[in-house]
Amino acid sequence: MDPDEFRRVGHEVVDWIADYRSRVEGFPVRSPVEPGWVRGQLAGLPERGEGFDGLLADLDRVVLPGTTHWQHPGFFAYFPSNASLPSVLGDLLSSGLGVQGMLWSTSPAATEVEQHLMDELVGALGLPPSFVGGGVIQDTASSAALVAVLAALHRSSGGTWRRSGVDGTETVYVSSQTHSSLERAARLAGLGEQAVRAVEVDSRLAMRADDLAARVRSDVAAGRRPVLVCATVGTTGTGAVDPVREIAAVCAEHGIWLHVDAAWAGPAALCPEFRDLFDGVDRADSFTANAHKWMLTAFDVSLFWTAHPDVLVDALTILPEYLRNTATESGAVVDYRDWQIPLGRRFRALKLWSVLRWYGLEGIREHLRGHVELAALLESWVDASDDWELVVPRSLSLLTIAHRSGDDATRAAMDRVNASGDAFVTHTTVDGRFAIRVAIGAEATREHHVRALWDALRLRD
Amino acid sequence: MDPDEFRRVGHEVVDWIADYRSRVEGFPVRSPVEPGWVRGQLAGLPERGEGFDGLLADLDRVVLPGTTHWQHPGFFAYFPSNASLPSVLGDLLSSGLGVQGMLWSTSPAATEVEQHLMDELVGALGLPPSFVGGGVIQDTASSAALVAVLAALHRSSGGTWRRSGVDGTETVYVSSQTHSSLERAARLAGLGEQAVRAVEVDSRLAMRADDLAARVRSDVAAGRRPVLVCATVGTTGTGAVDPVREIAAVCAEHGIWLHVDAAWAGPAALCPEFRDLFDGVDRADSFTANAHKWMLTAFDVSLFWTAHPDVLVDALTILPEYLRNTATESGAVVDYRDWQIPLGRRFRALKLWSVLRWYGLEGIREHLRGHVELAALLESWVDASDDWELVVPRSLSLLTIAHRSGDDATRAAMDRVNASGDAFVTHTTVDGRFAIRVAIGAEATREHHVRALWDALRLRD
Repeated sequence: MDPDEFRRVGHEVVDWIADYRSRVEGFPVRSPVEPGWVRGQLAGLPERGEGFDGLLADLDRVVLPGTTHWQHPGFFAYFPSNASLPSVLGDLLSSGLGVQGMLWSTSPAATEVEQHLMDELVGALGLPPSFVGGGVIQDTASSAALVAVLAALHRSSGGTWRRSGVDGTETVYVSSQTHSSLERAARLAGLGEQAVRAVEVDSRLAMRADDLAARVRSDVAAGRRPVLVCATVGTTGTGAVDPVREIAAVCAEHGIWLHVDAAWAGPAALCPEFRDLFDGVDRADSFTANAHKWMLTAFDVSLFWTAHPDVLVDALTILPEYLRNTATESGAVVDYRDWQIPLGRRFRALKLWSVLRWYGLEGIREHLRGHVELAALLESWVDASDDWELVVPRSLSLLTIAHRSGDDATRAAMDRVNASGDAFVTHTTVDGRFAIRVAIGAEATREHHVRALWDALRLRD
Repeated sequence: MDPDEFRRVGHEVVDWIADYRSRVEGFPVRSPVEPGWVRGQLAGLPERGEGFDGLLADLDRVVLPGTTHWQHPGFFAYFPSNASLPSVLGDLLSSGLGVQGMLWSTSPAATEVEQHLMDELVGALGLPPSFVGGGVIQDTASSAALVAVLAALHRSSGGTWRRSGVDGTETVYVSSQTHSSLERAARLAGLGEQAVRAVEVDSRLAMRADDLAARVRSDVAAGRRPVLVCATVGTTGTGAVDPVREIAAVCAEHGIWLHVDAAWAGPAALCPEFRDLFDGVDRADSFTANAHKWMLTAFDVSLFWTAHPDVLVDALTILPEYLRNTATESGAVVDYRDWQIPLGRRFRALKLWSVLRWYGLEGIREHLRGHVELAALLESWVDASDDWELVVPRSLSLLTIAHRSGDDATRAAMDRVNASGDAFVTHTTVDGRFAIRVAIGAEATREHHVRALWDALRLRD
């Protein structure tokens, strides 16, 4: 495909996406296809090349029916995965440049734009100055959790971990509400699930710092080595907020790495009125917030900061001959390959840059505040209802609700809504009770979509 | 940005990329900027949103001078990182759809198109039928290596690894030529570098199966537990090919997981005439080949197959309440989140699909063969030269060459070529000797580019 062909076909593809986004509301949010249906529609690989029309036709014929539409205004499931159109174009520019930013020298701009944005966001989010110079884009919060665990293991070992591996005494602390990626990170790091302590939560499902302290003391007394605590600002289940400052005090006492997972809620720190939720983050060793959830940036941009980039780099670096270069050896540059699990990396900062410039910080705040306002509105309707209730307090734009008459009614309402195609919600359990999560955050969601969801949930009340 | 704005700005972005690709040859391949220059040009984050023009202007003003141009026809460094224009559009479609394929149910098409392509490629690449149903797209070969190590640890432990972690007796086998990602994977998995055995290589820098067998026997006798061997088809340094079939025999005898890393050379298996290089892969437990290196697909698409997807999934799966869904519980679907390090995932199969359909298998073979022919031509010139020589035999489209008068001359020639901006090569060492790698593989590279490189290398002979 030469540049002129790309121009022609590229315009068609842009138009296809514009058309898709214009009509996304017309699709059932959750794909109704049965397992195997999509594969049954697909042809074998062609020996001879073909034009782009066939692919676009297959998108309409096969892919769209087989798609769960995350950009649909009726998408209230999981957490939002904003892929705003400016970010789509930023990512297109990244693919178009086709650079590989594993080393500073393999594309200085890929590294320096990322450094610049990450440093600027420290101020914009009210993060501690200790994070300046410690920011990097990870693909996901799961990977961010894993690199935090690895850096913590390295530090805790006094630097012997790289050579000797884990010794089986390391322990990691989460709560029952912490994202599963932490338990998984401990597993992948070779600690096994036996190393993971599930700290008690209070009635708001927040980690209890006193129970954390007790478990740490008990583990230390038993000859174990506490390595990392993960505190969460906005848990995946219900949006609970752990008491970061209290947890930080326990960590400081025992030299434990404090990782703060704010994958979903993190961008809310752009708004001063929500910043209380992040109290104590100034004492964290690492922090993560996903721009690809609620901050308008197409997957995959997980913002990760650490106050100890030297530890992270020392844990992850490896320098074979074929990667040696003058810039690296000068010590004057950052090579982001040493900050992440993969070696290669895309110029992901471009899609973040596109978002920050197109919307501006104020535009992103409006995006966030709008969803919180919609959630508060839904909360008021739930509070006024005889049949539904909040299972835990609203957290920003996330509500966890259940039918008062029991799990069967809650589940039936969820299944009915999801089958309708007009909205899509997912569930969690709270103290064994089945509850619907309403995560408001799609860019196109407006009041009438939330109203329609509420009406649909109550249809058979 | 509404769909109509996207249409307008999107056309501009497509045109910007078309223009960039048209004039890419006019840029110095390797960016000449000094550390910090790019950052010095950048403004703070805007409070108010702005149009897209400013970003495009900054791309021209700051990013392009700060870019090392991987799509330049004079790019002979590292390995190629093909970002063909059809793949750019496939990736654009993925961003435009904005779906998140962590579970089958979160977008059935994202999973099933990927399954379909990976299964079809088993046949096209001549891979063993045992890999059908075991294919998945990883971001990079480094991540593929890590998941192979994790699956191997799980299997080797008899299933106790998830719970108990590593026990410190595990050993992993590589050669001095194996990609550093394997040693790093062992480190990340908690084994430490002490677990990694560097098997001897022969005069062609291929792993010696007899030395592997001796080391395994010695480790077993010492109470160690051999877990994984990584054989490479096309090493990063020089393109050496390990004797996979002989290595597989050692692995089979001791129940060791055999991972075959063909990150760069793998796509060559599409051509029957190169398939001998892959002899023995039918006995591998896992295999990886990067579509984003030499197979025209924009980063990041690393093709990974395993004959034991059940082991991989059992090693990596974790199922919190909020991810439970009917399709997963039916057992009728694959949830790719269980096959990779991150939880979330893009619809990466779209860019691979775009490439396979636009070029067809025959078009991709032409791409590969063209580069091998250019490399053979350069080889003939080197062979006819009094001053230069091949340090090791040519491997497909990779040549490793040095000046006969010694390292200083070789290094001077490399520095001169790279400073010229017309071409970019990187180096390796072979038995302590400094050597230039000429990795031919950019989509736009033609004979006159290789000729120009050769002329430039000899400028002061």
